[in-house]
Amino acid sequence: METKPRRAMLYVPGSDERKLKKLTDLEVDCAVMDCEDGVAVNKKVDARNTIRSMLDRLSCPGVRDLAVRVNSVSSGLADEDLMEIFKAERLPSTVMLPKVESKAEVQWFVKTVKSQLSKRSSQAPLRVVIFTETAIGLLRLPDILEECQRASDATLVFEGVVFGSDDFCASIGATRTADAHELLYARQKVVATAKAFGMQAIDLVYIDFKDSVGLEEQSLQGARMGFTGKQVIHPNQIPIVQTAFSPSEERIKWAQELISAFEQHQATGKGAFDFKGSMIDMPTVLQARNILKLAEVNS
Amino acid sequence: METKPRRAMLYVPGSDERKLKKLTDLEVDCAVMDCEDGVAVNKKVDARNTIRSMLDRLSCPGVRDLAVRVNSVSSGLADEDLMEIFKAERLPSTVMLPKVESKAEVQWFVKTVKSQLSKRSSQAPLRVVIFTETAIGLLRLPDILEECQRASDATLVFEGVVFGSDDFCASIGATRTADAHELLYARQKVVATAKAFGMQAIDLVYIDFKDSVGLEEQSLQGARMGFTGKQVIHPNQIPIVQTAFSPSEERIKWAQELISAFEQHQATGKGAFDFKGSMIDMPTVLQARNILKLAEVNS
Amino acid sequence: METKPRRAMLYVPGSDERKLKKLTDLEVDCAVMDCEDGVAVNKKVDARNTIRSMLDRLSCPGVRDLAVRVNSVSSGLADEDLMEIFKAERLPSTVMLPKVESKAEVQWFVKTVKSQLSKRSSQAPLRVVIFTETAIGLLRLPDILEECQRASDATLVFEGVVFGSDDFCASIGATRTADAHELLYARQKVVATAKAFGMQAIDLVYIDFKDSVGLEEQSLQGARMGFTGKQVIHPNQIPIVQTAFSPSEERIKWAQELISAFEQHQATGKGAFDFKGSMIDMPTVLQARNILKLAEVNS
Repeated sequence: METKPRRAMLYVPGSDERKLKKLTDLEVDCAVMDCEDGVAVNKKVDARNTIRSMLDRLSCPGVRDLAVRVNSVSSGLADEDLMEIFKAERLPSTVMLPKVESKAEVQWFVKTVKSQLSKRSSQAPLRVVIFTETAIGLLRLPDILEECQRASDATLVFEGVVFGSDDFCASIGATRTADAHELLYARQKVVATAKAFGMQAIDLVYIDFKDSVGLEEQSLQGARMGFTGKQVIHPNQIPIVQTAFSPSEERIKWAQELISAFEQHQATGKGAFDFKGSMIDMPTVLQARNILKLAEVNS
Repeated sequence: METKPRRAMLYVPGSDERKLKKLTDLEVDCAVMDCEDGVAVNKKVDARNTIRSMLDRLSCPGVRDLAVRVNSVSSGLADEDLMEIFKAERLPSTVMLPKVESKAEVQWFVKTVKSQLSKRSSQAPLRVVIFTETAIGLLRLPDILEECQRASDATLVFEGVVFGSDDFCASIGATRTADAHELLYARQKVVATAKAFGMQAIDLVYIDFKDSVGLEEQSLQGARMGFTGKQVIHPNQIPIVQTAFSPSEERIKWAQELISAFEQHQATGKGAFDFKGSMIDMPTVLQARNILKLAEVNS
Repeated sequence: METKPRRAMLYVPGSDERKLKKLTDLEVDCAVMDCEDGVAVNKKVDARNTIRSMLDRLSCPGVRDLAVRVNSVSSGLADEDLMEIFKAERLPSTVMLPKVESKAEVQWFVKTVKSQLSKRSSQAPLRVVIFTETAIGLLRLPDILEECQRASDATLVFEGVVFGSDDFCASIGATRTADAHELLYARQKVVATAKAFGMQAIDLVYIDFKDSVGLEEQSLQGARMGFTGKQVIHPNQIPIVQTAFSPSEERIKWAQELISAFEQHQATGKGAFDFKGSMIDMPTVLQARNILKLAEVNS
């Protein structure tokens, strides 16, 4: 199954009907109708009801992936969230499961969702994105993703991992700084582990929503690390982030020229060659192919 | 059981009676009477005898946690160190176990210590802090801490992990630099793993004991990463380190205002809100609560 | 068995007889006759035949370790590569196995090679160096190296791990930058894991082969992290890299003086002492001993 990157992933509180309706006019790779942390405790029921109703009524032609984030399994609210969502005629394209801390939580989720899916007529597979946002969740991430991979089938596909940096900081007692130096290990472990299972990796949120320079810098850094996208909390962040997670014209040109040079050298029997002062062989060609593939899928 | 951070953890060689007696007038979260690397090979017996005698004679009202560091299990000296310490009327509040490389070492330690504890009348639980200071110890840290967690009970509680940076550098062949860039992976893995098991994480020592500016900088960096404290090798380092590992007045004020704003928004049904230019929801509130809790426990 | 570091590890395409013959006059710790990524697809058979013939004909007195890199197990070409190499009278001192992703690949390799070795008269053990260059390979590195350790015996010894950075970047979707910030987690995990099993760790290649300043800087950084050597793709890189991975005169002097001071203090019963403004005890002495040992082995 083809999987498209969620370069920007925008949260909208599920209890805020006015903001949800704005999705109609929005252009974004992924919009998340939120039942979890963006919703006040006394609005949890409201949120899931509003989301269910919006799923059937809202038309969002500019949103490539319309998702719902339920509450975590450990919160005890996930079951009711899911039951409500499955009352909708039109399911979200993705369900997001936050604060995953064990493969048992994945197993519970899979069982619950597949039981609902089996009652519906055949359709496109439901996509799932999970969150890593605690110390124990990060420690067990390999086991958790192995379970996700095992559970993926024609009806349900685990597609990505979101790094929930602020919950993670709270979990390990770290203090968020502008350059996120304190999160380097966690971010790069999330990328490497997600990619080991062929999954997307979605980077931390930049909460200072008026600082577009800082946002661009952190987005580009995340893209260089291998993240496929970034969480956003304001519509103004979308174009900056989506551009940062798309290959630049310059990179695309570099990739095209490199691949062309490689093919010429291969034909003459040369496996390694000098390209603009760098010694190039297969691994760099694979990087160039990634760039062209990414440029194509986003176009 | 309540656990108090060891912001500064000062080593005193167990063979140096003069320095041990100075603990009487010292103010520090944790003082460690050392049997291990701070003691010359020909003074190992002296050190353990002196420490046993000091345990019963020394009154240190300004030392919150009076600890003993025994030699490692693999050195073959830990058994005699423990036997001597358990002859004292008054046990240390914490035993520190260096160079832990396997859960088998934890099991041996637990068996040995619990057998001694069972012979004594009931008392406060003995606290244990272990050290990660080799490549294999770091690799197995998750297994080791899982064993520590399993072994903790009403008599014995594993409370923290110390990162022994200089032994670790020797183990992996790294060279210590001022900014400790070469240790980033190890330090952040230690924090994340310790916190996954609810344990304290105590950062590397700053051996250049005359450079208080560098010490402060590295202490603040460690605190931002989530370490709860730092090893010190000179009394002059204590106030700098303890201040760095305490929330600043400014941070406390920020946390109080944020929590107050959060509660107001929750009451009106808003889960996410703009606070001083940042979009805030539950995860940042958890960080703010951490700060206030830490301020309280250190006061 | 004594193991000598491969400070510089130079690749030469196995299909390029002219370049292979230049090894006769070269001074380098390790030269790798390559069957893998440095060889065009239509030259794979050529490369292995040329290498087999060179193994018996080429005399390279300045090459400490003459190695062959076969294709990966997953490529399906490794078997034929190995069969051809084992036809040579004189085996390479080291076989390099790229893109290892599971212990099953190690097991296949060990079985295949040992079966060949058993047909030959007794000799020095064949050394093996494996490569980590994908997300899944990095994730499973501990398991893979445990298997390597288990398989090592008098005939076959696993001696090192190479970090294949460009394949790794392609695998996780990262973009290579000059300071390699995006690879920090992977590089330091490779070092720590290799050292946990007593193996060498060989750092990423610097493909910009005309920039000797950048090469030196990255080499020194790798050496500080604990890497024992670095891959090179041009003979001009060899002296810069081998110098960077050797202790400087200044470091050797520091180590000698520190050890001498330590021994004097030990004799007088002091375990920790002030040395040039730093508080020194056993761990720093271990680092100093590493330096002197490394200086000796490279001399």
